[in-house]
Amino acid sequence: MAFRGHVHRFLRTQLGHCRTQSRAQSVAVLGAPFSRGQKRGGVEHGPKVIREAGLIERLSGLDYSVHDFGDLSFQHLEKDEPYMDVKFPRSVGAANKMLSGAASRAVGAGHTLVMLGGDHSLAIGSVSGHAQQCPDLCLIWVDAHADINTPMTSPSGNLHGQPVSFMLKELTDKIPAIPGFSWMKPFLSSRDLVYIGLRDVDPGERNILKDLGIQYFTMRDIDRMGIQRVMEMTFDHLMARKQRPIHLSFDIDAFDPSLAPATGTPVNGGLTYREGMYITEEIHNTGLLSAMDLVEVNPELGANREAVEATASLAVNVIASSLGQTREGAHVSIDEIPSAKDDTEQLRL
Amino acid sequence: MAFRGHVHRFLRTQLGHCRTQSRAQSVAVLGAPFSRGQKRGGVEHGPKVIREAGLIERLSGLDYSVHDFGDLSFQHLEKDEPYMDVKFPRSVGAANKMLSGAASRAVGAGHTLVMLGGDHSLAIGSVSGHAQQCPDLCLIWVDAHADINTPMTSPSGNLHGQPVSFMLKELTDKIPAIPGFSWMKPFLSSRDLVYIGLRDVDPGERNILKDLGIQYFTMRDIDRMGIQRVMEMTFDHLMARKQRPIHLSFDIDAFDPSLAPATGTPVNGGLTYREGMYITEEIHNTGLLSAMDLVEVNPELGANREAVEATASLAVNVIASSLGQTREGAHVSIDEIPSAKDDTEQLRL
Amino acid sequence: MAFRGHVHRFLRTQLGHCRTQSRAQSVAVLGAPFSRGQKRGGVEHGPKVIREAGLIERLSGLDYSVHDFGDLSFQHLEKDEPYMDVKFPRSVGAANKMLSGAASRAVGAGHTLVMLGGDHSLAIGSVSGHAQQCPDLCLIWVDAHADINTPMTSPSGNLHGQPVSFMLKELTDKIPAIPGFSWMKPFLSSRDLVYIGLRDVDPGERNILKDLGIQYFTMRDIDRMGIQRVMEMTFDHLMARKQRPIHLSFDIDAFDPSLAPATGTPVNGGLTYREGMYITEEIHNTGLLSAMDLVEVNPELGANREAVEATASLAVNVIASSLGQTREGAHVSIDEIPSAKDDTEQLRL
Repeated sequence: MAFRGHVHRFLRTQLGHCRTQSRAQSVAVLGAPFSRGQKRGGVEHGPKVIREAGLIERLSGLDYSVHDFGDLSFQHLEKDEPYMDVKFPRSVGAANKMLSGAASRAVGAGHTLVMLGGDHSLAIGSVSGHAQQCPDLCLIWVDAHADINTPMTSPSGNLHGQPVSFMLKELTDKIPAIPGFSWMKPFLSSRDLVYIGLRDVDPGERNILKDLGIQYFTMRDIDRMGIQRVMEMTFDHLMARKQRPIHLSFDIDAFDPSLAPATGTPVNGGLTYREGMYITEEIHNTGLLSAMDLVEVNPELGANREAVEATASLAVNVIASSLGQTREGAHVSIDEIPSAKDDTEQLRL
Repeated sequence: MAFRGHVHRFLRTQLGHCRTQSRAQSVAVLGAPFSRGQKRGGVEHGPKVIREAGLIERLSGLDYSVHDFGDLSFQHLEKDEPYMDVKFPRSVGAANKMLSGAASRAVGAGHTLVMLGGDHSLAIGSVSGHAQQCPDLCLIWVDAHADINTPMTSPSGNLHGQPVSFMLKELTDKIPAIPGFSWMKPFLSSRDLVYIGLRDVDPGERNILKDLGIQYFTMRDIDRMGIQRVMEMTFDHLMARKQRPIHLSFDIDAFDPSLAPATGTPVNGGLTYREGMYITEEIHNTGLLSAMDLVEVNPELGANREAVEATASLAVNVIASSLGQTREGAHVSIDEIPSAKDDTEQLRL
Repeated sequence: MAFRGHVHRFLRTQLGHCRTQSRAQSVAVLGAPFSRGQKRGGVEHGPKVIREAGLIERLSGLDYSVHDFGDLSFQHLEKDEPYMDVKFPRSVGAANKMLSGAASRAVGAGHTLVMLGGDHSLAIGSVSGHAQQCPDLCLIWVDAHADINTPMTSPSGNLHGQPVSFMLKELTDKIPAIPGFSWMKPFLSSRDLVYIGLRDVDPGERNILKDLGIQYFTMRDIDRMGIQRVMEMTFDHLMARKQRPIHLSFDIDAFDPSLAPATGTPVNGGLTYREGMYITEEIHNTGLLSAMDLVEVNPELGANREAVEATASLAVNVIASSLGQTREGAHVSIDEIPSAKDDTEQLRL
């Protein structure tokens, strides 16, 4: 068993540690209590409330070996003036550099990574670290927003609305030399990205989506085609040529605000609970999920405790469903229906 | 008229009182204030709050002759120790024996039976009584749970999670001789059962479902195929060879907890109101509904009065829609649009 | 520019001011604070709360020239006894006569008309005024109710449940000479009308719908076919022979009461937010919307301020979506993704 584990780890090393067919038996949970990608306080407490909603127990119940690596300790920068309109560039850059290294190590060690945000700027670190180990990964971005503004197009200057633009090779010459980001370079092709759930897209973002021919599904598309067809088309797009590791970056604001009220930029008309479960069940069923982010749970923005708990509990369900929790009942190793204990006393019916 | 009634009753007697094409003109409402199939108090008040939500008036408005037979009086057993892990076996057995007789008499008298629970263990009595009159009935079980644990597989020992296993012929040798159940024997073939709405299935239950090849539709299936297709497949499965009487066993927890909060074992991601209406409209439209259960409304579990009233009102809508309430407007006997009363004064337009 | 405007206005005059292909650049907002079509006070404050929810700013943001013509001043009639069972006939007749003239002038001046109710009896004036300019218009009626009772079939006598019957040529000899309505005559053919969202249809109404062969989609039809197919069939029905101007008459009670609680006759099981957006997006996409009503927002019937604001905000979204607000992101004139400002300092990635 220990020996098999070694061999398995060795093989995974040869393959760059990347899921293609097999299923990792261990999950690494990594908290990223960071909020400088946007202006509202509280989202740094996301990892705490998601854990309190029972994440670790739930994943353990799915028969994973769960390794909770706790929270990253991000350095607080006293001086971090805006660059152009970009807010907190050095803080966001440094946090993502640290996260990128941690993500890379976790995936490299054979874990399926679960990163708990924090705001969505953290995807820069999480996806880039994942990509260091698995350069052929694809990215499924479930979100009300496209988060693909560049520093030149962003209306707000908040980096949580820009992470995707920093990742895309096609946008290399559209991104200025923001302080804090010299450690990274674009690593993702725009054809390896699919959006699900969009419903609040800035004009500059729409331009980029169209210009690069990115595959995206708005809520209107889900209304039109249904979530089943959307997932089919997602996998057709990403896996047409070959199976590849999946990075799922899930912003809780993809859900309708009635389900996920405790978040910073809610938009009406979001995913239903059932659509969220369907998306994540389908991703799990590929057997290719290699890392995921769950971001933008902000416990300071719920109207009351119930609102916060509902949002955190939803986050736990998203993660658990991505990792195999199923509405059909779990597979079990029992082969036979147990007979009545005492055959002679058996109820003669 | 009276004569015709006699003939009709006579014919139904010859046919075993079972609906196949014609529509019963009379409905029997029967309360079963019983809660010993589970641990939480309050579900015995289900019949009361469903009646208070206007059930009888609503059914009368659908042009039925409604016979409210009141509530059954279940005997309280002082001593009812668990058998193996099974809780209150003698109480559940005795209550179901009484209910079985009453259900049989109601169906035998030509009524469409509406049984108001109480917890879902009562389906043993209700369906078995119905089957005494209509041995070829089929069973549509709308529920978040499969309620098909055997005493050997049940994690909780509560009988409201086990009623289906007591009914199925295929599980005869899996059911031990529980005290209180010597009066009944399995009567239903597993191919004559369809589940709709499942989303919380125990490992042992999943095993039974798969082993017996039972047709079931989880919420995931509804997400995938839509409720219209699910109902088509339900009837294809049950009526392929011949038309037969339907027993509908509807657990209010099939609905999403946001719609039916006052229930004992709510599970996220349930049926919408509209799906519930669609299911019951389709069942009504077959003309084959012969008896139904509405169970697990527990007024002590709503957070407030509104929650209880919403749940009870939903129960009334489920029953009324099963019996012909329609969103398209009721059929009426008026043949012509009434003309303006005074032709000479008619608005010349 | 001013000249072009004149030419444009001139051309539209020649065409009867009616949208067939081009898109009006200007929107006229007209409030109709009227409640005598039904019994409950408060619906006359609809225009106020819809404006307070940001309607004008939202439409301006869609690049329209928005002309807010304020609210009509309806005369209060001291003496307005029922005629047969019809309540407030002279008040409803006079208000609609005034509204009809105003609607005709607004459409005639080249605006897309947005009429804010008030109760749904106002559609008589709004649609008839629109039809004066565009006799070949078609009518899409989104509502929980059919509002097609005649004075002879109406169970309540409230005119907000009867407006459609006053419009239809086929019902000419079914409408008595109600005082207050001598100014108008039926102008719409029943084949030029489609209903969406019905779920509470009176027996007499169902009779009329069936008798006249009116195309209608109940919530059950939406459940069965999906909203995408319903909209396809709507346009197939209305535009089969030719493109024609659309009048959209939208009752906020088409939505589920959980979304639009502040209204007079809520009915469970209504449209979702997303279905409402889909319907209006599709109507906008035809390029043929020429006038619309948004009625039955009643701020006195919300349980609290949140309920009223949610309802009013929903009304704003319905109107904005009908006029081009999109979940895909707005079209913009930017042709290129802006490059990083300083090419030499550009982040080399």
